Amino acid sequence: MFSMIRCYVVFGQIRRHLTGSAFTQLIGQSNLRKSTPADFRKLRELVCTLERFGTLGNDIELTNKEIEVNDVIMYLKMEEYNKGIADPSQFVPGYHIFERLGKIKESRLFFLLSKMPKGGALKAHSRSMCSTDFLIKLTYEKHLWVCTTDNGCRLRSFHFSQEKPTDTRIEGGEWQTMEQLRDYRGEENLNRHLQNAFSMYPMVEKTTSAAAWQHLMKISLLLDGLLRYPPVWGKYFYNALKEFYEDGAQYVEVRTRLKRFYCLDGTKLPVQETVKVYQEHVQRFKEDYPDFIDARIIYSPQRRATVEEVGKFVNMCIELNKEFPKFVVGFDLIGQEDVGDPLLNFAGELQRLPAHIGLYLHAGQTNWYGTHVDENLIDAVLLGTKRIGHAYAITKHPLVLQLVKKLDIAIEVCPVCSQVLQLGADYRNHPAACLIANDIPFVISSGNPSFWRTSPLSHDFYMAFLGIAPMYTDLKFLKRISKNSIKYSSLPDEEKALAMTKWKIKWEKWVDIILKTKDQILAKETDTCPTDA
Amino acid sequence: MFSMIRCYVVFGQIRRHLTGSAFTQLIGQSNLRKSTPADFRKLRELVCTLERFGTLGNDIELTNKEIEVNDVIMYLKMEEYNKGIADPSQFVPGYHIFERLGKIKESRLFFLLSKMPKGGALKAHSRSMCSTDFLIKLTYEKHLWVCTTDNGCRLRSFHFSQEKPTDTRIEGGEWQTMEQLRDYRGEENLNRHLQNAFSMYPMVEKTTSAAAWQHLMKISLLLDGLLRYPPVWGKYFYNALKEFYEDGAQYVEVRTRLKRFYCLDGTKLPVQETVKVYQEHVQRFKEDYPDFIDARIIYSPQRRATVEEVGKFVNMCIELNKEFPKFVVGFDLIGQEDVGDPLLNFAGELQRLPAHIGLYLHAGQTNWYGTHVDENLIDAVLLGTKRIGHAYAITKHPLVLQLVKKLDIAIEVCPVCSQVLQLGADYRNHPAACLIANDIPFVISSGNPSFWRTSPLSHDFYMAFLGIAPMYTDLKFLKRISKNSIKYSSLPDEEKALAMTKWKIKWEKWVDIILKTKDQILAKETDTCPTDA
Repeated sequence: MFSMIRCYVVFGQIRRHLTGSAFTQLIGQSNLRKSTPADFRKLRELVCTLERFGTLGNDIELTNKEIEVNDVIMYLKMEEYNKGIADPSQFVPGYHIFERLGKIKESRLFFLLSKMPKGGALKAHSRSMCSTDFLIKLTYEKHLWVCTTDNGCRLRSFHFSQEKPTDTRIEGGEWQTMEQLRDYRGEENLNRHLQNAFSMYPMVEKTTSAAAWQHLMKISLLLDGLLRYPPVWGKYFYNALKEFYEDGAQYVEVRTRLKRFYCLDGTKLPVQETVKVYQEHVQRFKEDYPDFIDARIIYSPQRRATVEEVGKFVNMCIELNKEFPKFVVGFDLIGQEDVGDPLLNFAGELQRLPAHIGLYLHAGQTNWYGTHVDENLIDAVLLGTKRIGHAYAITKHPLVLQLVKKLDIAIEVCPVCSQVLQLGADYRNHPAACLIANDIPFVISSGNPSFWRTSPLSHDFYMAFLGIAPMYTDLKFLKRISKNSIKYSSLPDEEKALAMTKWKIKWEKWVDIILKTKDQILAKETDTCPTDA
Repeated sequence: MFSMIRCYVVFGQIRRHLTGSAFTQLIGQSNLRKSTPADFRKLRELVCTLERFGTLGNDIELTNKEIEVNDVIMYLKMEEYNKGIADPSQFVPGYHIFERLGKIKESRLFFLLSKMPKGGALKAHSRSMCSTDFLIKLTYEKHLWVCTTDNGCRLRSFHFSQEKPTDTRIEGGEWQTMEQLRDYRGEENLNRHLQNAFSMYPMVEKTTSAAAWQHLMKISLLLDGLLRYPPVWGKYFYNALKEFYEDGAQYVEVRTRLKRFYCLDGTKLPVQETVKVYQEHVQRFKEDYPDFIDARIIYSPQRRATVEEVGKFVNMCIELNKEFPKFVVGFDLIGQEDVGDPLLNFAGELQRLPAHIGLYLHAGQTNWYGTHVDENLIDAVLLGTKRIGHAYAITKHPLVLQLVKKLDIAIEVCPVCSQVLQLGADYRNHPAACLIANDIPFVISSGNPSFWRTSPLSHDFYMAFLGIAPMYTDLKFLKRISKNSIKYSSLPDEEKALAMTKWKIKWEKWVDIILKTKDQILAKETDTCPTDA
């Protein structure tokens, strides 16, 4: 047996054809205790090589320039990594991101990643795309009323109106204009309050996933009246695209419930108007930023619904897709998976969707194993989903993993979201490590960056690259992940080619800038990083 | 394609031969969006069946009696599980065990598991086998001196001696007899102090793995002088076997550094004397408890050593094995893996061990990925290890997983230890879930139960069964794991058969007792469980 292996080792090129499982067959039931030191070394080299060959991103060939850039990136990565091995309390991905946001800001690796063209952001929830600061800015818009309880101390609801709102659904709630509340509580004090009200800070300690979800829902509910007013939504969405664009995303797919907007006089607009506001601002953004590729909508109502309701959602999606065939392009069901009905219950309704409307189902965003919750993964795959949102539980389902690979379904990995929603504490334990090891296609998304005060994608890229991926993972991985976000987007093939070109131009520019500023970046004495050109 | 699948579904027996990967091949690049609702249901049934067929323990056939017992166990498991799904804050495996020890005591499921014959405990570290209470009892032994600092407030070292010890290595340390210290601090107060000094409580919050290891080493160091005195070690070890036996273990493999014992006059005994004390008490225990199978030693010096030192360890092991061929039967290197040298450095020395001395190497007890630390997994396997201790990082190494399965190497899974040593927080994320899903052989061990005040094996079984395994996992899994502990022990084959018989007698007795007391156990009003016969 060993002579066969030796032969493979000698002929490096043949080795490339020896897959992991072929190797396992080869080694059979050998008694490895009887191997010589030389045999051991050769076998070891073979296993290490096969392992690294098999990881995600290893198909990428770097250009000469990229190889140089890779040296810079790996220098910075290894600097943080080695510090972490020497003293784990210095390793950022071992901690809750809320505790380390300041430290990440100082990271030169993070800086480089933040400037990296990342392709598309394929999972962005409409209500949590903008920074907290921008949300606070929106509270200065005219005609905004606020409902408070506890003598103005708790903000419960916003509403744009000419007159004082008459909604009395909040017990003990009192309506006043934002100006009045600002005068009453003091501007600085109120804005500090809003900072917390619009995000999940200071929550750091371990709680349950259910409690974290409730917190998230509360923020979403608070934002409802603020954002469902068309002129404000327009500003919000345009700014969201801008924040994503500035963070390296040239393409965005938005998961949204497409709730109906309201007018100043309280009348509700049909849902088509909501879509039009989105579309109009995407159009405007594309004109302002010609290298932005596009944005599209995946209609995503709440999964906590009856079969009948899901049936209505499906009808709505079909209808909207007919009216906006290139804009409302997919369907998903969102919300806390642990408490919703399983996908299985809705299978009949979901199967009514015509095949040209893509399914992009959330599934397996849970710690449970062997329950109707994580078995959503099976249903998502068998219903023909194109991507799976989160799929945190997928490594417990080897057959689903095989199917996902065979059917070329991409996982939407959201590192920070998994932590904040209490699925896992340490990034090094994130199941995406197994996806990398098994070369399962995935993209990196953020989910709700607004609620955790992170950038649209960069923090997730940083945690994935430094905390989840193997130490030796390099630019090949980053390039593969970025390209995946276009490859696995909902774009038609011909548009994908164009999108890839637009991304490539920016990518090459980024490569050039790093090469130009390399010495500055690597200079140990540099505390701050050079700004990009 | 679907007609083929339909055929498989129709012929249930054929289905058994359709493995996961064959199924994946079959499904090919199908467009599942085009399947009918009936096709979807059939495919789903097939995938679910294949998934469950493939999990660890599914080879076990239960007897009629066991099926009845399984109903009881699953009733209790589902009671706790469903409460957890409804309110995750009630789910014990979602929390640090130090916070939930009281709650586990009340669990009827835990009670049944604590009485279950578990076969062998294959990973027990010599210094952390006895309960804290027993350790405190040992501090009442004659001639015991204690070295304290901070005016008697900090216990630093123990020593048995006729005269006051003259060791001045501890700065500011003062020696007095335990009687004196007990008088000075008050018995109750001192024993409360010892309770904490001998265990890692109250540490619950997330710290680093390095900090947790330092804590563990500190306790081990404190116990050094207390336990290395032969008469006391004899009592300690006999009691350890008793505690393990009472917790359902009929066989124990002890990892130990085999440090030299000392006499009252300070003289040090040769290491052979240490082995003899062990052996003598195993013999005595076997005479007192005839259904106890045996105990054996895996010589396990510290991995933080030079190549030369490891060479000496290897020589020592060979020598001891010659003198005690049926007692000192294996070799391992222990201690915090993150800071030690990689196994690779010691490969040459380890390969000098004759093949009849088994390797039972710790490897991959780490969160790091793609480093020299987790790559110890590759070396352990290629060096021919029979089992791997912890292997926490193994799911990031699919090729190693395949090799482990092919070569029939068992993983020693230590659920509680992984948590306390800060590898993972939530039991539901423990990588052993993937081992179950992929049918990788493993045993459940505890490591250092003394330091976390848990029972020798039961708490680990409880966490694995309730927290790590799929919801539907039942008695088949428990039986497989228990049998594995004999199958993968260091016992020669003929002794394994005898051991299996001894275990089976106890197992059947346990089954009978549950059947007899079934109504009492299931009666909702029963707060306490019936004691076993």
